Amino acid sequence: MIVLLNRFTVHGDPETFEEVFAAVSDYMSDRPGFLAHRLVREAGDGAAYVNIAEWESLELLRRAVRSPEFEVHEDALAALATSGPVLHEVVLDRTAVAA
Amino acid sequence: MIVLLNRFTVHGDPETFEEVFAAVSDYMSDRPGFLAHRLVREAGDGAAYVNIAEWESLELLRRAVRSPEFEVHEDALAALATSGPVLHEVVLDRTAVAA
Repeated sequence: MIVLLNRFTVHGDPETFEEVFAAVSDYMSDRPGFLAHRLVREAGDGAAYVNIAEWESLELLRRAVRSPEFEVHEDALAALATSGPVLHEVVLDRTAVAA
Repeated sequence: MIVLLNRFTVHGDPETFEEVFAAVSDYMSDRPGFLAHRLVREAGDGAAYVNIAEWESLELLRRAVRSPEFEVHEDALAALATSGPVLHEVVLDRTAVAA
């Protein structure tokens, strides 16, 4: 599994950004290799977001973003925000016993 | 639920950092309000880590870190790395249907 952390700085309308992102989420979650993602917003900063995405492999993530359909989503996001995706490997993973 | 993203830049030995972090994980995961956490390492950069932690509330997270026991862990981490914790709220959360 790989974890992609993508920090978005929104210069457009945050509400519109969240709507556009929901459409991207619809698309990505339907691709082979997608495991889960979470879009979080910085507390006290309505323009700073991070997408935390889990994918089976870098190869499958690359396949998902190398499609003409993804380009449409990418352009829609780029019109509203700058992004900085960084790939990560999992070192430690723990869930509460009682959760 | 809140999501704490904490970026660590390790200036000490990364292997030692991971061992010290595992002890912090043991401590934190036993505190009321802890839900889950994941320590990830930037691909291609052995010194850049992000801890992604989920807590029931900011109040319970604060209670966990305001203890003399946590201070010992905090000092051990600070000797090896600088950190930059940022609080986040969840906007969107999705898991693969087939996962």
